[in-house]
Amino acid sequence: MNHTEILKEYIPILRNLKFEKMYGEDFFLTWEKSMDELTAVFTVADTLRALREDNISTRIFDSGLGISLFRDNSTRTRFSFASACNLLGLTVQDLDEGKSQIAHGETVRETANMVSFMADAIGIRDDMYIGKGNAYMHEVSDALKEGFETGVLEQRPTLVNLQCDIDHPTQTMADLNHVIHHFGGAENLKGKKVAMTWAYSPSYGKPLSVPQGVIGLFTRAGMDVVLAHPEGYEVMENVLDVAKQNAQQNGTSFRVTHSMQDAFADADIVYPKSWAPFSAMQKRTDLYGQGDFSGIDQLEKELLAKNAEHMDWECTEALMQTTAGGNALYLHCLPADISDVSCKHGEVAAEVFDRYRTLLYKEASYKPYIIAAMIFLSKMKDPVTKLESLCAHGLERFGK
Amino acid sequence: MNHTEILKEYIPILRNLKFEKMYGEDFFLTWEKSMDELTAVFTVADTLRALREDNISTRIFDSGLGISLFRDNSTRTRFSFASACNLLGLTVQDLDEGKSQIAHGETVRETANMVSFMADAIGIRDDMYIGKGNAYMHEVSDALKEGFETGVLEQRPTLVNLQCDIDHPTQTMADLNHVIHHFGGAENLKGKKVAMTWAYSPSYGKPLSVPQGVIGLFTRAGMDVVLAHPEGYEVMENVLDVAKQNAQQNGTSFRVTHSMQDAFADADIVYPKSWAPFSAMQKRTDLYGQGDFSGIDQLEKELLAKNAEHMDWECTEALMQTTAGGNALYLHCLPADISDVSCKHGEVAAEVFDRYRTLLYKEASYKPYIIAAMIFLSKMKDPVTKLESLCAHGLERFGK
Amino acid sequence: MNHTEILKEYIPILRNLKFEKMYGEDFFLTWEKSMDELTAVFTVADTLRALREDNISTRIFDSGLGISLFRDNSTRTRFSFASACNLLGLTVQDLDEGKSQIAHGETVRETANMVSFMADAIGIRDDMYIGKGNAYMHEVSDALKEGFETGVLEQRPTLVNLQCDIDHPTQTMADLNHVIHHFGGAENLKGKKVAMTWAYSPSYGKPLSVPQGVIGLFTRAGMDVVLAHPEGYEVMENVLDVAKQNAQQNGTSFRVTHSMQDAFADADIVYPKSWAPFSAMQKRTDLYGQGDFSGIDQLEKELLAKNAEHMDWECTEALMQTTAGGNALYLHCLPADISDVSCKHGEVAAEVFDRYRTLLYKEASYKPYIIAAMIFLSKMKDPVTKLESLCAHGLERFGK
Repeated sequence: MNHTEILKEYIPILRNLKFEKMYGEDFFLTWEKSMDELTAVFTVADTLRALREDNISTRIFDSGLGISLFRDNSTRTRFSFASACNLLGLTVQDLDEGKSQIAHGETVRETANMVSFMADAIGIRDDMYIGKGNAYMHEVSDALKEGFETGVLEQRPTLVNLQCDIDHPTQTMADLNHVIHHFGGAENLKGKKVAMTWAYSPSYGKPLSVPQGVIGLFTRAGMDVVLAHPEGYEVMENVLDVAKQNAQQNGTSFRVTHSMQDAFADADIVYPKSWAPFSAMQKRTDLYGQGDFSGIDQLEKELLAKNAEHMDWECTEALMQTTAGGNALYLHCLPADISDVSCKHGEVAAEVFDRYRTLLYKEASYKPYIIAAMIFLSKMKDPVTKLESLCAHGLERFGK
Repeated sequence: MNHTEILKEYIPILRNLKFEKMYGEDFFLTWEKSMDELTAVFTVADTLRALREDNISTRIFDSGLGISLFRDNSTRTRFSFASACNLLGLTVQDLDEGKSQIAHGETVRETANMVSFMADAIGIRDDMYIGKGNAYMHEVSDALKEGFETGVLEQRPTLVNLQCDIDHPTQTMADLNHVIHHFGGAENLKGKKVAMTWAYSPSYGKPLSVPQGVIGLFTRAGMDVVLAHPEGYEVMENVLDVAKQNAQQNGTSFRVTHSMQDAFADADIVYPKSWAPFSAMQKRTDLYGQGDFSGIDQLEKELLAKNAEHMDWECTEALMQTTAGGNALYLHCLPADISDVSCKHGEVAAEVFDRYRTLLYKEASYKPYIIAAMIFLSKMKDPVTKLESLCAHGLERFGK
Repeated sequence: MNHTEILKEYIPILRNLKFEKMYGEDFFLTWEKSMDELTAVFTVADTLRALREDNISTRIFDSGLGISLFRDNSTRTRFSFASACNLLGLTVQDLDEGKSQIAHGETVRETANMVSFMADAIGIRDDMYIGKGNAYMHEVSDALKEGFETGVLEQRPTLVNLQCDIDHPTQTMADLNHVIHHFGGAENLKGKKVAMTWAYSPSYGKPLSVPQGVIGLFTRAGMDVVLAHPEGYEVMENVLDVAKQNAQQNGTSFRVTHSMQDAFADADIVYPKSWAPFSAMQKRTDLYGQGDFSGIDQLEKELLAKNAEHMDWECTEALMQTTAGGNALYLHCLPADISDVSCKHGEVAAEVFDRYRTLLYKEASYKPYIIAAMIFLSKMKDPVTKLESLCAHGLERFGK
């Protein structure tokens, strides 16, 4: 299918969705958006991808900056955001603030304005401290809104949450778009069983945003979601509430189990991934706030010892055989801890990972388009007409 | 006012100014430029801003690099330069040389050429060592001129001084443009009193380029300038001479006082800001040259102790009440040391800072446009016609 | 000559060359390319330069990324690659992996894909470990090919070797293009004598890729090549074989001598430059693999002591007087160790270096165009028609 055919398919979908409220708005959490709005993101992402595959330029900016603000080193997120910006014509300017606990109040307000004089988009990753990341993003967003309203900024930059302490919307939206394509359409997801499960990793303190984001999003897509983890590895209470409520409102189910076997049995989709217990992450944030670094070291040792009790939480071929048709779709946000490859014991057996490698790369490939679609929908007053005009104009991205 | 109306106002102003000599030239110090040339910078900056506000592209480059060369970490200057380059269509490439005292001679000549094969502009910040920064910029400029003349470079990059040991032209030009707009036009500045005063800061060794730049520039804008500082906090002798000469030639006044109260009394504009004594900075440069790091530590301690004797040099509300109408325009290059916010005792009381916050951000927002205007005027053979053609062409910056 | 005249000269040359196989291919080693293909690179590089000199845009990309992957700090290579990308319309995104010995297998495959979703070109510099750099580039290339074929990537990025353990093709091609221009055409190189000689440097472990690349390339250009070094400073055995075979096939000569005087005598071109012995570099790689850092320190001391025995291997004026007409063309990849300038004793006397300075800068100026030409020839299905259309279209790079 070339882009013209794809447009014929996608434009009518977009015309039937209500997403006017996305104009001028930021993207923080998937559950703050309506299902129509999320579908609009998927559809615009697919359209941008189809255009690019057909060598049609999707630049909507002749100039302008995309600011990336990361709290730690992040090659993949950095490249996804840079790719999304490039696709739309924005130039990325990185703002690295180091791993220190982020400043608040005056400093945030000031920095947000000082870097945004020419900024059309700002992507923030801040997932390290419980109760901080999302709050920080809102502080930045409020500062930018005020900066625009008072004439300091010529435009209001669109904020995209590239991972916070609560959700990881660009990851889980890419994951779900991959699932939709894999099963041949969102309508085919009805009744599918998803196993979002903890898995053992020799490293410590992996963020909660992925499991939380998955249970908060996949429960809205017609699927039955099981969250599995050893006792003590609970996620945020209020995200559990979101997942339960989603399931109730969408006629799907959501439940928690402490057995990986239980979760994998007859699952259509499995997402085995390590994370740190919410309570431990909260404790770490408190220790950090008190500057108690020996306490943090002690906590780390305890957590690693606790992890080591659950080495059997590994996604093996034997376990994969218990899934629907022995053939569930294996998901991961990457990089995975692969047993005998990246570590001795990890989240997944090498034979499983290898079998799904191309699919995993494909899964990751949706992210830049998801980010671009979020920016596009916030910036465009009339996204449908714009997509049509990009298509009609047919400017080559690359003049072979 | 939309950009068409603004152009109707600005183009005639530009037509009456003599600034042909800016073509192909660098920007080092404001007092090396005529008042007509500085007015051209303000006018072009305002025009570029009006065009951008009206979503008209001001790209004059289809491709090309803007090189940024900073001697220390500088988020704000980095973003200002990146914004200016982006506005004109240049891509920024950073050259970070670390904080070491900069190389001279062969090395400067070579590096300048090696990074400039595709460079149309180069922005340098080098304010750390007395007698070095400005000299270094001239070495780079001479090397680039030679590189162009001998056919090594296809074009001669325009050098913009982003802060040196003597002047900080992009900052003070942004400050003055803010003042002009605040008072409704350059013609309204006649007879206004400006207080450029030292203020206490708990940190050490803040550069002299801002106070020096302000007294060297504001004395030419029809205003009466008072420089206030405790004894021992003198600025460069030859910049004092520049300020005196400016005042004489422009029928304004310039004087030095050792009383903050004296400076603030009936002032229309106040600029309270910490800096290190010129003699101490010169001593530090000498110690650095000798590799005497314990001497530098000792000097730092002495300076901090000396600073602490002048904690009463703070911009308080009480002091603000003594200014003209109790309502002087408060300026700062940011970030400011705000008492009880960023430090215990600082340059300015929180209540004063907060009252002027939006104006301070607005002040900062002029800088990218000032930098862009400096590059524009150096690159364009006929800047007026080019502005008219950008306007007539009316290419959207951002295709909403 | 303006670009129209240059095109009249260059297009017929290109029409007579066979280089169709470069389409979609990477550039690893010069001796993997035919002489027609190398000539195509020179000719396209010269054409791109002529277009740029005449202010004609050579952007073939409206958007797209160029990924730079460096194993160590490299200002010059970074800027050359950034310049080449900018010339073609690509935005550079840097991937810095630090100096650690590079990962293999799974990790390389994954990272290569994760950074390349929007990548049209990828430039890699990895020259630090024998047997690793070139192998790593092939791993990346294979991963990208597979990523493209499996639909993970929308396009296959072109890989350019920016320096590996075996060859430094962008450097030596720039060097040779400089030589061609200096002597007024490739046809004038017949019978010229080239002295690629070791020279003393107080620093340790300089890469072998330049001498290896030079003997592997210059032996194909009609010139007689002499490789000179003290005993013990041998280069890779198989590159010596390449040089010998080239000479045989091209009716030129290649020999090794242990006398700098012998090499310089009546030479038309001299390239005196320090490098580390191949066997020592191999030993270092082994020690690194074993994590034997004290062994590495010990090796470094031994090598510096060994170097110090050959301080007389310096390019002096006296030695230059023994070259053809006392006037050989002096080459260097820069930066050079200049005696009494950058170090006490170095590779070259200051008076020699200074006399050739402008020519050396000119030599370096070819590199961005060589890199751009390599990308251009890999990306363009019909490069000749594209060059003609860029010329006919005549879009200004910079709208003066």
